Amino acid sequence: MEEKTIKVHLSNTKKAKPAADQLEFGRVFTDHMFILDYTEGSGWHSPRIVPYQSLTLDPASIVFHYGQTVFEGLKAYVTKQGEVRLFRPEKNMERLNRSNNRMCIPQIDESLALKAIKELVNLEKDWIPTAPGTSLYIRPFIISNEAYLGVAPSKTYQFIVILSPVGAYYKEGINPVKISVENDFVRAVKGGTGEAKTAGNYASSLKAQELVSNEGYAQVLWLDGLEKKYIEEVGSMNVFFKINGEVITPELNGSILEGVTRNSVIQLLTHWNVPVYERKISMDEVYEAYKAGLLEEAFGAGTAAVISPIGVLAWQGEQMKINQGETGEISKKLYDTLTGIQYGTESDPFGWTEKVE
Amino acid sequence: MEEKTIKVHLSNTKKAKPAADQLEFGRVFTDHMFILDYTEGSGWHSPRIVPYQSLTLDPASIVFHYGQTVFEGLKAYVTKQGEVRLFRPEKNMERLNRSNNRMCIPQIDESLALKAIKELVNLEKDWIPTAPGTSLYIRPFIISNEAYLGVAPSKTYQFIVILSPVGAYYKEGINPVKISVENDFVRAVKGGTGEAKTAGNYASSLKAQELVSNEGYAQVLWLDGLEKKYIEEVGSMNVFFKINGEVITPELNGSILEGVTRNSVIQLLTHWNVPVYERKISMDEVYEAYKAGLLEEAFGAGTAAVISPIGVLAWQGEQMKINQGETGEISKKLYDTLTGIQYGTESDPFGWTEKVE
Ligand SMILES: Cc1ncc(COP(=O)(O)O)c(C=O)c1O
Ligand SMILES: Cc1ncc(COP(=O)(O)O)c(C=O)c1O
Repeated sequence: MEEKTIKVHLSNTKKAKPAADQLEFGRVFTDHMFILDYTEGSGWHSPRIVPYQSLTLDPASIVFHYGQTVFEGLKAYVTKQGEVRLFRPEKNMERLNRSNNRMCIPQIDESLALKAIKELVNLEKDWIPTAPGTSLYIRPFIISNEAYLGVAPSKTYQFIVILSPVGAYYKEGINPVKISVENDFVRAVKGGTGEAKTAGNYASSLKAQELVSNEGYAQVLWLDGLEKKYIEEVGSMNVFFKINGEVITPELNGSILEGVTRNSVIQLLTHWNVPVYERKISMDEVYEAYKAGLLEEAFGAGTAAVISPIGVLAWQGEQMKINQGETGEISKKLYDTLTGIQYGTESDPFGWTEKVE
Repeated sequence: MEEKTIKVHLSNTKKAKPAADQLEFGRVFTDHMFILDYTEGSGWHSPRIVPYQSLTLDPASIVFHYGQTVFEGLKAYVTKQGEVRLFRPEKNMERLNRSNNRMCIPQIDESLALKAIKELVNLEKDWIPTAPGTSLYIRPFIISNEAYLGVAPSKTYQFIVILSPVGAYYKEGINPVKISVENDFVRAVKGGTGEAKTAGNYASSLKAQELVSNEGYAQVLWLDGLEKKYIEEVGSMNVFFKINGEVITPELNGSILEGVTRNSVIQLLTHWNVPVYERKISMDEVYEAYKAGLLEEAFGAGTAAVISPIGVLAWQGEQMKINQGETGEISKKLYDTLTGIQYGTESDPFGWTEKVE
């Protein structure tokens, strides 16, 4: 059974929209949401847009106990031309299905999911902020809602999309952050769920994050869970290092999330003839490069911040100051190009953006 | 603010109770539930027993996205004497707070939580099945319900207790199961969340479990995430091996759950002067013992099954048949003693059970 027509039930009331300078990340949601149900036997069914509302779930729902859930994160932008555009949304839908596979959640129709996102964004287009750097954050997610305490995949699910207008990540322009390398806690390990975008990975990251923020760091840099030697990710971003003219990012090894921004960065660097390598990279290598004066730049890459330059990297009592704590040239160029493509101020040679109408 | 008085709002309707021979695990819930709220600044407040009902949660609630949640599992038994008793419930409350600590959830008042469980169980005592091996499963859990998409600990929570009458784990007496040693997937790793009873650990176990059940195995035996060498747990149980007269169980290493049954087994064995060791134990060691004819018994230990003898252990293409696929002597004695203490047919020398009244 494949119903492709999305029923729309409009809200009678409209919420007040936050002022442009009051926008935060993920606190305010728009007037409507999208819901699609899954029932064993019937598959995914009943696509609908409804007023933004609370979910009603049996307290025994699997999601509360065994965390069988996946999510995605992408953004809609109002371009210079006044169009509403998404950035490579099909990549998010592909990753959603890869996450589903790992978490024993049934595959979803990617084109229906994307259609739903576009219809919802279009309906809510007045909610998309237009000030520089602002956007509409799109959060598709799937929850398991069978009321059963056995440890087994749920027989019912809901795919839901909610939207949140978000402010500019950098209030005063792109700005380097302080990052602490994590030596005790582990985010993910090969054979675990690190390459899926699933709740448990984020739950397990809270403690380390809490401890380092108390020490003034923005995020932790995660090392591999086996040897605590190789670099994995930084906070909710993939990470890149520029060493002696070459850019290196950890290879996809099963415990790292395959970021859409990561992929775009690699393509851009290749396009610019900057040598870029996906390979194992250890903290020792980074530290040696630093000591030799060859660690030129380091940055995180993810949907939220786009590019997040690393100004200070703390590891084993050492504070490595990278590029004098300033945003590096490649970081800046990547940020400008990616946001330029997203906001339509630069051309889109890869056809990465998609119009919502 | 510490309110210790539990408000009770009784249900107007009573559900039909399942017939003794129809009882499953975790599918049917009683007429009432317990709820306690947490709000930053006010702490835990408003303890109440209410009719069993759906939870109403904002779709942006942290639990759906980042899985910040913990749970416990214990049982109430009707004893031979007609009393309602719990088995070492204070251990579950202590573990709940250890899990809370790892998951950045505020500590809960253990005595209030236990009081709530007792009041709820007492109110629902007609729901406790009395046929041999049946019990009332108690599921306390905490969910994070702040509506916020930032990756950060929630500022609000609910502690909830639901009850489910459950059938005998072994319909025809204690019976050995087939277990497959997992070589690809990993449940938990040191520095991760393995020692906390939190949703993500169970979500990550679903895939391996699904694959082995297709091959006719009841559960997987997890190896350590680092070397895939040392034994960790089996399904949702701790695991014990009897080799040449000595009982060995993996030591608490940060990635294993500290089971209440595990602790009780160790105490009983010590009491019986059976040598018992908590230490690293590798699959190689188990296999060598098997080859040498010294692997006498293997069993899982957990609240659900109490003791689950392992009849066949599959590893690297080898099917090790343990104790001719029969329940071993120690397994049987532990099962009989533990259930005897729980159901009041044996004395309780350790004072493990606690009366509900
Ligand atoms: C753990 C993790 N790594 C990396 C990323 C970056 O992925 P993307 O570029 O698709 O946003 C994310 C998501 O934002 C993430 O949660
Ligand atoms: C992963 C895991 N290991 C072990 C156990 C056994 O713990 P307990 O004996 O407290 O039930 C459980 C819980 O049942 C569990 O979920």
